[in-house]
Amino acid sequence: MKQETIKRIRRFSDERDWDQFHSPANIAKSIVIESAELLECFQWNEDEYDLQHVKEELADVIVFTQNMLDKLDLDPDEIVNMKMEQNEKKYPVEKAKGNAAKYDQL
Amino acid sequence: MKQETIKRIRRFSDERDWDQFHSPANIAKSIVIESAELLECFQWNEDEYDLQHVKEELADVIVFTQNMLDKLDLDPDEIVNMKMEQNEKKYPVEKAKGNAAKYDQL
Amino acid sequence: MKQETIKRIRRFSDERDWDQFHSPANIAKSIVIESAELLECFQWNEDEYDLQHVKEELADVIVFTQNMLDKLDLDPDEIVNMKMEQNEKKYPVEKAKGNAAKYDQL
Amino acid sequence: MKQETIKRIRRFSDERDWDQFHSPANIAKSIVIESAELLECFQWNEDEYDLQHVKEELADVIVFTQNMLDKLDLDPDEIVNMKMEQNEKKYPVEKAKGNAAKYDQL
Repeated sequence: MKQETIKRIRRFSDERDWDQFHSPANIAKSIVIESAELLECFQWNEDEYDLQHVKEELADVIVFTQNMLDKLDLDPDEIVNMKMEQNEKKYPVEKAKGNAAKYDQL
Repeated sequence: MKQETIKRIRRFSDERDWDQFHSPANIAKSIVIESAELLECFQWNEDEYDLQHVKEELADVIVFTQNMLDKLDLDPDEIVNMKMEQNEKKYPVEKAKGNAAKYDQL
Repeated sequence: MKQETIKRIRRFSDERDWDQFHSPANIAKSIVIESAELLECFQWNEDEYDLQHVKEELADVIVFTQNMLDKLDLDPDEIVNMKMEQNEKKYPVEKAKGNAAKYDQL
Repeated sequence: MKQETIKRIRRFSDERDWDQFHSPANIAKSIVIESAELLECFQWNEDEYDLQHVKEELADVIVFTQNMLDKLDLDPDEIVNMKMEQNEKKYPVEKAKGNAAKYDQL
Protein backbone atom coordinates (compact mmCIF):
# COMPACT_ATOMS: atom_id res chain seq x y z
CA MET A 1 0.00 0.00 0.00
CA LYS A 2 1.01 3.56 -0.57
CA GLN A 3 2.16 5.66 2.40
CA GLU A 4 -0.74 7.97 1.65
CA THR A 5 -3.29 5.18 2.17
CA ILE A 6 -1.54 4.02 5.35
CA LYS A 7 -1.64 7.58 6.65
CA ARG A 8 -5.36 7.80 5.94
CA ILE A 9 -5.92 4.65 8.04
CA ARG A 10 -3.89 6.14 10.90
CA ARG A 11 -5.58 9.52 10.68
CA PHE A 12 -9.01 7.87 10.83
CA SER A 13 -8.23 6.35 14.24
CA ASP A 14 -6.32 9.36 15.51
CA GLU A 15 -9.12 11.80 14.76
CA ARG A 16 -11.60 9.55 16.58
CA ASP A 17 -9.30 8.98 19.55
CA TRP A 18 -9.66 5.23 19.06
CA ASP A 19 -6.16 4.19 20.00
CA GLN A 20 -7.49 3.49 23.49
CA PHE A 21 -9.62 0.65 22.06
CA HIS A 22 -6.88 -0.74 19.84
CA SER A 23 -5.17 -3.19 22.14
CA PRO A 24 -3.49 -5.98 20.19
CA ALA A 25 -6.13 -8.41 21.50
CA ASN A 26 -9.01 -6.20 20.36
CA ILE A 27 -7.45 -5.78 16.93
CA ALA A 28 -6.98 -9.56 16.68
CA LYS A 29 -10.69 -10.01 17.44
CA SER A 30 -11.49 -7.38 14.82
CA ILE A 31 -9.46 -9.14 12.13
CA VAL A 32 -11.34 -12.39 12.82
CA ILE A 33 -14.70 -10.61 12.79
CA GLU A 34 -14.00 -8.88 9.48
CA SER A 35 -12.58 -12.00 7.88
CA ALA A 36 -15.71 -13.92 8.90
CA GLU A 37 -17.74 -11.22 7.16
CA LEU A 38 -15.56 -11.78 4.10
CA LEU A 39 -16.25 -15.51 4.35
CA GLU A 40 -19.96 -14.76 4.52
CA CYS A 41 -19.73 -13.65 0.87
CA PHE A 42 -19.06 -17.33 0.09
CA GLN A 43 -21.27 -18.95 2.75
CA TRP A 44 -23.75 -20.80 0.55
CA ASN A 45 -22.23 -20.44 -2.87
CA GLU A 46 -18.55 -20.45 -3.63
CA ASP A 47 -18.78 -19.49 -7.26
CA GLU A 48 -21.20 -16.61 -7.39
CA TYR A 49 -20.37 -13.75 -5.11
CA ASP A 50 -20.96 -10.04 -4.83
CA LEU A 51 -17.58 -8.58 -5.82
CA GLN A 52 -18.34 -5.16 -4.31
CA HIS A 53 -19.14 -6.79 -0.99
CA VAL A 54 -15.93 -8.87 -1.18
CA LYS A 55 -13.92 -5.69 -1.81
CA GLU A 56 -15.43 -3.95 1.22
CA GLU A 57 -14.83 -6.82 3.62
CA LEU A 58 -11.32 -7.49 2.31
CA ALA A 59 -10.56 -3.78 2.77
CA ASP A 60 -11.69 -4.02 6.40
CA VAL A 61 -9.31 -6.95 6.95
CA ILE A 62 -6.47 -4.90 5.46
CA VAL A 63 -7.30 -1.87 7.61
CA PHE A 64 -7.25 -3.82 10.88
CA THR A 65 -4.09 -5.64 9.78
CA GLN A 66 -2.47 -2.23 9.31
CA ASN A 67 -3.73 -1.20 12.76
CA MET A 68 -1.99 -4.27 14.22
CA LEU A 69 1.27 -3.54 12.39
CA ASP A 70 1.13 0.04 13.70
CA LYS A 71 0.22 -0.96 17.24
CA LEU A 72 3.10 -3.41 17.53
CA ASP A 73 5.43 -1.29 15.42
CA LEU A 74 6.03 -4.13 12.98
CA ASP A 75 7.37 -3.96 9.45
CA PRO A 76 5.24 -6.06 7.06
CA ASP A 77 8.20 -6.88 4.79
CA GLU A 78 10.21 -8.13 7.73
CA ILE A 79 7.57 -10.41 9.21
CA VAL A 80 6.34 -11.70 5.86
CA ASN A 81 9.86 -12.56 4.72
CA MET A 82 10.56 -14.26 8.05
CA LYS A 83 7.38 -16.33 7.63
CA MET A 84 7.95 -17.09 3.95
CA GLU A 85 11.33 -18.52 4.86
CA GLN A 86 9.60 -20.89 7.30
CA ASN A 87 6.93 -21.76 4.74
CA GLU A 88 9.46 -22.47 2.02
CA LYS A 89 11.15 -24.99 4.33
CA LYS A 90 7.91 -26.55 5.58
CA TYR A 91 6.61 -27.00 2.04
CA PRO A 92 9.52 -28.06 -0.17
CA VAL A 93 8.61 -27.73 -3.84
CA GLU A 94 9.27 -31.36 -4.66
CA LYS A 95 6.84 -32.58 -2.00
CA ALA A 96 4.22 -29.84 -2.07
CA LYS A 97 3.83 -29.37 -5.81
CA GLY A 98 0.18 -29.76 -6.75
CA ASN A 99 -0.59 -30.99 -3.25
CA ALA A 100 -2.72 -29.12 -0.72
CA ALA A 101 -1.85 -31.39 2.22
CA LYS A 102 -0.66 -29.77 5.44
CA TYR A 103 3.11 -29.84 5.98
CA ASP A 104 2.92 -32.55 8.62
CA GLN A 105 1.16 -34.83 6.17
CA LEU A 106 3.39 -34.30 3.15
CA MET B 1 4.77 -4.08 1.18
CA LYS B 2 7.63 -3.96 -1.24
CA GLN B 3 7.18 -5.42 -4.71
CA GLU B 4 9.96 -7.85 -3.90
CA THR B 5 8.00 -9.30 -0.96
CA ILE B 6 4.81 -9.50 -3.00
CA LYS B 7 6.74 -11.34 -5.72
CA ARG B 8 8.06 -13.82 -3.17
CA ILE B 9 4.48 -14.59 -2.09
CA ARG B 10 3.45 -15.14 -5.71
CA ARG B 11 6.49 -17.25 -6.52
CA PHE B 12 5.82 -19.46 -3.51
CA SER B 13 2.38 -20.45 -4.87
CA ASP B 14 3.51 -20.59 -8.47
CA GLU B 15 6.38 -22.97 -7.79
CA ARG B 16 4.05 -25.29 -5.87
CA ASP B 17 1.32 -25.12 -8.49
CA TRP B 18 -1.16 -24.06 -5.82
CA ASP B 19 -3.22 -21.64 -7.88
CA GLN B 20 -5.66 -24.51 -8.47
CA PHE B 21 -6.52 -24.49 -4.73
CA HIS B 22 -6.74 -20.73 -4.46
CA SER B 23 -10.36 -20.10 -5.28
CA PRO B 24 -11.62 -16.89 -3.66
CA ALA B 25 -13.76 -18.98 -1.29
CA ASN B 26 -10.79 -21.12 -0.20
CA ILE B 27 -8.65 -18.04 0.37
CA ALA B 28 -11.46 -16.46 2.41
CA LYS B 29 -11.54 -19.61 4.57
CA SER B 30 -7.76 -19.42 4.91
CA ILE B 31 -7.83 -15.80 6.08
CA VAL B 32 -10.35 -16.72 8.79
CA ILE B 33 -8.31 -19.75 9.84
CA GLU B 34 -5.09 -17.77 10.12
CA SER B 35 -6.74 -14.87 11.90
CA ALA B 36 -8.23 -17.30 14.44
CA GLU B 37 -4.68 -18.58 15.02
CA LEU B 38 -3.65 -14.97 15.59
CA LEU B 39 -6.50 -14.59 18.08
CA GLU B 40 -5.30 -17.73 19.85
CA CYS B 41 -2.23 -15.72 20.96
CA PHE B 42 -4.67 -13.71 23.11
CA GLN B 43 -7.12 -16.50 24.03
CA TRP B 44 -6.67 -16.55 27.82
CA ASN B 45 -4.57 -13.49 28.44
CA GLU B 46 -4.83 -10.25 26.57
CA ASP B 47 -1.81 -8.55 28.04
CA GLU B 48 0.94 -11.14 27.91
CA TYR B 49 1.53 -12.67 24.53
CA ASP B 50 4.30 -14.33 22.58
CA LEU B 51 5.34 -11.59 20.13
CA GLN B 52 7.15 -14.00 17.82
CA HIS B 53 3.99 -16.10 17.53
CA VAL B 54 1.92 -12.98 16.86
CA LYS B 55 4.31 -11.98 14.06
CA GLU B 56 4.06 -15.40 12.42
CA GLU B 57 0.27 -15.54 12.48
CA LEU B 58 -0.12 -11.92 11.37
CA ALA B 59 2.26 -12.64 8.49
CA ASP B 60 0.05 -15.58 7.45
CA VAL B 61 -2.98 -13.27 7.40
CA ILE B 62 -1.06 -10.81 5.21
CA VAL B 63 0.07 -13.56 2.83
CA PHE B 64 -3.45 -14.89 2.24
CA THR B 65 -4.78 -11.33 1.93
CA GLN B 66 -2.21 -10.77 -0.82
CA ASN B 67 -3.32 -14.06 -2.45
CA MET B 68 -6.90 -12.73 -2.49
CA LEU B 69 -5.87 -9.39 -3.99
CA ASP B 70 -3.93 -11.26 -6.69
CA LYS B 71 -6.71 -13.76 -7.36
CA LEU B 72 -9.32 -11.07 -7.87
CA ASP B 73 -6.88 -8.64 -9.46
CA LEU B 74 -7.61 -5.95 -6.90
CA ASP B 75 -5.56 -2.91 -5.99
CA PRO B 76 -5.26 -2.52 -2.19
CA ASP B 77 -5.05 1.27 -2.36
CA GLU B 78 -8.22 1.42 -4.41
CA ILE B 79 -10.35 -0.82 -2.20
CA VAL B 80 -9.01 0.59 1.08
CA ASN B 81 -9.65 4.18 -0.03
CA MET B 82 -13.13 3.23 -1.20
CA LYS B 83 -13.84 1.65 2.21
CA MET B 84 -12.24 4.46 4.23
CA GLU B 85 -14.55 6.88 2.50
CA GLN B 86 -17.53 4.79 3.68
CA ASN B 87 -16.07 4.52 7.19
CA GLU B 88 -15.43 8.25 7.45
CA LYS B 89 -19.09 8.88 6.67
CA LYS B 90 -20.41 6.13 8.94
CA TYR B 91 -18.31 7.34 11.86
CA PRO B 92 -18.34 11.16 11.83
CA VAL B 93 -15.60 12.52 14.11
CA GLU B 94 -17.99 14.53 16.25
CA LYS B 95 -20.08 11.47 17.09
CA ALA B 96 -17.45 8.74 17.15
CA LYS B 97 -14.68 10.51 19.07
CA GLY B 98 -13.68 8.39 22.05
CA ASN B 99 -16.64 6.12 21.42
CA ALA B 100 -16.37 2.48 20.33
CA ALA B 101 -20.09 2.06 19.59
CA LYS B 102 -21.09 0.61 16.23
CA TYR B 103 -22.21 3.18 13.67
CA ASP B 104 -25.87 2.22 13.98
CA GLN B 105 -25.72 2.99 17.71
CA LEU B 106 -23.91 6.30 17.57
CA MET C 1 -26.73 -33.88 25.50
CA LYS C 2 -27.16 -36.08 28.52
CA GLN C 3 -26.77 -34.56 31.99
CA GLU C 4 -23.91 -36.99 32.52
CA THR C 5 -21.95 -35.55 29.58
CA ILE C 6 -22.66 -31.98 30.69
CA LYS C 7 -21.41 -32.86 34.18
CA ARG C 8 -18.22 -34.28 32.72
CA ILE C 9 -17.59 -30.97 30.91
CA ARG C 10 -18.14 -29.04 34.14
CA ARG C 11 -16.00 -31.39 36.23
CA PHE C 12 -13.16 -31.05 33.73
CA SER C 13 -12.97 -27.27 34.31
CA ASP C 14 -13.67 -27.49 38.02
CA GLU C 15 -10.89 -29.97 38.70
CA ARG C 16 -8.42 -27.76 36.82
CA ASP C 17 -9.60 -24.57 38.51
CA TRP C 18 -10.19 -23.02 35.09
CA ASP C 19 -13.26 -21.00 35.89
CA GLN C 20 -10.95 -18.01 36.43
CA PHE C 21 -10.06 -18.07 32.71
CA HIS C 22 -13.62 -18.60 31.51
CA SER C 23 -14.85 -15.06 31.15
CA PRO C 24 -17.64 -14.81 28.55
CA ALA C 25 -15.22 -12.95 26.24
CA ASN C 26 -12.55 -15.64 26.53
CA ILE C 27 -15.11 -18.36 25.86
CA ALA C 28 -16.38 -16.44 22.82
CA LYS C 29 -12.80 -16.30 21.50
CA SER C 30 -12.47 -20.03 22.16
CA ILE C 31 -15.63 -20.88 20.22
CA VAL C 32 -14.30 -18.93 17.21
CA ILE C 33 -10.88 -20.57 17.47
CA GLU C 34 -12.34 -24.08 17.63
CA SER C 35 -14.81 -23.43 14.84
CA ALA C 36 -11.98 -22.16 12.63
CA GLU C 37 -10.20 -25.46 13.34
CA LEU C 38 -13.37 -27.22 12.26
CA LEU C 39 -13.39 -25.15 9.08
CA GLU C 40 -9.77 -26.16 8.47
CA CYS C 41 -11.06 -29.69 7.79
CA PHE C 42 -12.67 -28.21 4.67
CA GLN C 43 -10.04 -25.58 3.79
CA TRP C 44 -8.91 -26.89 0.39
CA ASN C 45 -11.43 -29.60 -0.34
CA GLU C 46 -15.07 -29.48 0.60
CA ASP C 47 -15.95 -33.01 -0.35
CA GLU C 48 -13.20 -35.15 1.12
CA TYR C 49 -12.58 -34.65 4.79
CA ASP C 50 -11.21 -36.55 7.74
CA LEU C 51 -14.36 -37.48 9.68
CA GLN C 52 -12.48 -38.24 12.88
CA HIS C 53 -10.91 -34.78 12.77
CA VAL C 54 -14.31 -33.20 12.12
CA LYS C 55 -15.75 -35.02 15.14
CA GLU C 56 -12.96 -33.79 17.41
CA GLU C 57 -13.24 -30.16 16.37
CA LEU C 58 -17.03 -30.17 16.46
CA ALA C 59 -16.84 -31.65 19.97
CA ASP C 60 -14.58 -28.76 21.01
CA VAL C 61 -17.14 -26.27 19.71
CA ILE C 62 -19.86 -28.04 21.71
CA VAL C 63 -17.74 -28.08 24.88
CA PHE C 64 -17.04 -24.33 24.78
CA THR C 65 -20.66 -23.63 23.90
CA GLN C 66 -21.66 -25.54 27.05
CA ASN C 67 -19.08 -23.52 29.01
CA MET C 68 -20.76 -20.33 27.78
CA LEU C 69 -24.25 -21.56 28.69
CA ASP C 70 -22.95 -22.45 32.16
CA LYS C 71 -21.06 -19.19 32.64
CA LEU C 72 -24.08 -17.06 31.78
CA ASP C 73 -26.54 -19.47 33.37
CA LEU C 74 -28.51 -19.84 30.15
CA ASP C 75 -30.94 -22.54 29.15
CA PRO C 76 -30.25 -23.77 25.59
CA ASP C 77 -33.91 -24.63 24.93
CA GLU C 78 -34.97 -21.15 25.95
CA ILE C 79 -32.47 -19.22 23.83
CA VAL C 80 -32.78 -21.52 20.81
CA ASN C 81 -36.58 -21.30 20.83
CA MET C 82 -36.37 -17.52 21.20
CA LYS C 83 -34.02 -17.36 18.20
CA MET C 84 -35.99 -19.86 16.09
CA GLU C 85 -39.05 -17.67 16.54
CA GLN C 86 -37.08 -14.74 15.10
CA ASN C 87 -35.71 -16.89 12.28
CA GLU C 88 -39.13 -18.23 11.36
CA LYS C 89 -40.36 -14.65 10.94
CA LYS C 90 -37.27 -13.44 9.10
CA TYR C 91 -37.40 -16.34 6.67
CA PRO C 92 -41.07 -17.00 5.80
CA VAL C 93 -41.45 -20.38 4.10
CA GLU C 94 -43.06 -18.95 0.97
CA LYS C 95 -40.13 -16.60 0.34
CA ALA C 96 -37.22 -18.65 1.63
CA LYS C 97 -38.08 -22.04 0.17
CA GLY C 98 -35.15 -23.31 -1.85
CA ASN C 99 -33.46 -19.93 -1.53
CA ALA C 100 -30.25 -19.29 0.40
CA ALA C 101 -30.46 -15.49 0.19
CA LYS C 102 -30.10 -13.50 3.39
CA TYR C 103 -33.38 -12.30 4.91
CA ASP C 104 -32.80 -8.69 3.85
CA GLN C 105 -32.52 -9.81 0.23
CA LEU C 106 -35.52 -12.13 0.09
CA MET D 1 -31.47 -29.77 24.38
CA LYS D 2 -34.94 -31.24 24.38
CA GLN D 3 -36.01 -33.40 21.45
CA GLU D 4 -38.76 -30.87 20.80
CA THR D 5 -36.22 -28.07 20.26
CA ILE D 6 -34.07 -30.27 18.05
CA LYS D 7 -37.13 -31.11 15.98
CA ARG D 8 -37.95 -27.44 15.59
CA ILE D 9 -34.44 -26.83 14.19
CA ARG D 10 -34.88 -29.69 11.73
CA ARG D 11 -38.36 -28.63 10.70
CA PHE D 12 -37.13 -25.10 10.01
CA SER D 13 -34.65 -26.36 7.39
CA ASP D 14 -36.98 -29.02 6.03
CA GLU D 15 -39.84 -26.61 5.40
CA ARG D 16 -37.49 -24.24 3.55
CA ASP D 17 -35.87 -27.03 1.54
CA TRP D 18 -32.47 -25.90 2.75
CA ASP D 19 -30.81 -29.28 3.06
CA GLN D 20 -29.36 -28.69 -0.40
CA PHE D 21 -27.27 -25.81 1.01
CA HIS D 22 -26.22 -27.66 4.15
CA SER D 23 -23.06 -29.38 3.01
CA PRO D 24 -20.72 -30.05 5.93
CA ALA D 25 -18.34 -27.40 4.55
CA ASN D 26 -21.09 -24.77 4.33
CA ILE D 27 -22.23 -25.54 7.86
CA ALA D 28 -18.64 -25.27 9.10
CA LYS D 29 -18.43 -21.83 7.47
CA SER D 30 -21.74 -20.90 9.11
CA ILE D 31 -20.54 -21.92 12.58
CA VAL D 32 -17.46 -19.69 12.18
CA ILE D 33 -19.56 -16.80 10.90
CA GLU D 34 -22.02 -17.00 13.77
CA SER D 35 -19.30 -17.44 16.39
CA ALA D 36 -17.54 -14.34 15.03
CA GLU D 37 -20.83 -12.48 15.48
CA LEU D 38 -20.87 -13.75 19.06
CA LEU D 39 -17.30 -12.48 19.49
CA GLU D 40 -18.41 -9.11 18.17
CA CYS D 41 -20.43 -8.68 21.38
CA PHE D 42 -17.05 -8.49 23.16
CA GLN D 43 -15.03 -6.70 20.45
CA TRP D 44 -14.13 -3.49 22.27
CA ASN D 45 -15.22 -4.21 25.80
CA GLU D 46 -15.00 -7.57 27.49
CA ASP D 47 -16.92 -6.67 30.62
CA GLU D 48 -19.98 -4.84 29.41
CA TYR D 49 -22.02 -6.67 26.83
CA ASP D 50 -25.56 -6.83 25.56
CA LEU D 51 -26.83 -10.10 27.06
CA GLN D 52 -29.78 -10.33 24.66
CA HIS D 53 -27.41 -10.05 21.71
CA VAL D 54 -25.13 -12.69 23.22
CA LYS D 55 -28.10 -15.05 23.60
CA GLU D 56 -29.12 -14.60 19.97
CA GLU D 57 -25.65 -15.23 18.56
CA LEU D 58 -24.98 -18.16 20.88
CA ALA D 59 -28.31 -19.66 19.81
CA ASP D 60 -27.23 -19.36 16.16
CA VAL D 61 -24.02 -21.25 16.96
CA ILE D 62 -26.06 -23.99 18.65
CA VAL D 63 -28.48 -24.24 15.71
CA PHE D 64 -25.71 -24.69 13.12
CA THR D 65 -23.91 -27.12 15.43
CA GLN D 66 -27.11 -29.17 15.52
CA ASN D 67 -27.31 -28.95 11.71
CA MET D 68 -23.80 -30.40 11.52
CA LEU D 69 -24.62 -33.24 13.94
CA ASP D 70 -27.70 -34.04 11.85
CA LYS D 71 -25.88 -33.80 8.53
CA LEU D 72 -23.13 -36.20 9.59
CA ASP D 73 -25.46 -38.31 11.71
CA LEU D 74 -23.36 -37.81 14.82
CA ASP D 75 -24.32 -38.30 18.44
CA PRO D 76 -23.19 -35.35 20.59
CA ASP D 77 -22.69 -37.50 23.69
CA GLU D 78 -20.48 -39.86 21.78
CA ILE D 79 -18.19 -37.28 20.21
CA VAL D 80 -18.00 -35.10 23.32
CA ASN D 81 -17.09 -38.06 25.52
CA MET D 82 -14.50 -39.19 22.99
CA LYS D 83 -12.97 -35.69 23.00
CA MET D 84 -13.18 -35.24 26.77
CA GLU D 85 -11.19 -38.42 27.16
CA GLN D 86 -8.47 -36.92 24.96
CA ASN D 87 -8.61 -33.61 26.84
CA GLU D 88 -8.39 -35.30 30.24
CA LYS D 89 -5.18 -37.00 29.12
CA LYS D 90 -3.71 -33.90 27.45
CA TYR D 91 -4.38 -31.77 30.50
CA PRO D 92 -3.62 -33.85 33.60
CA VAL D 93 -5.05 -32.17 36.72
CA GLU D 94 -1.71 -31.98 38.52
CA LYS D 95 -0.11 -30.05 35.66
CA ALA D 96 -3.04 -28.01 34.36
CA LYS D 97 -4.53 -26.86 37.66
CA GLY D 98 -4.82 -23.07 37.64
CA ASN D 99 -2.80 -22.93 34.43
CA ALA D 100 -4.14 -21.82 31.06
CA ALA D 101 -1.08 -22.93 29.08
CA LYS D 102 -1.63 -25.10 26.01
CA TYR D 103 -0.98 -28.81 26.55
CA ASP D 104 2.30 -28.74 24.64
CA GLN D 105 3.60 -26.07 26.99
CA LEU D 106 2.55 -27.60 30.29
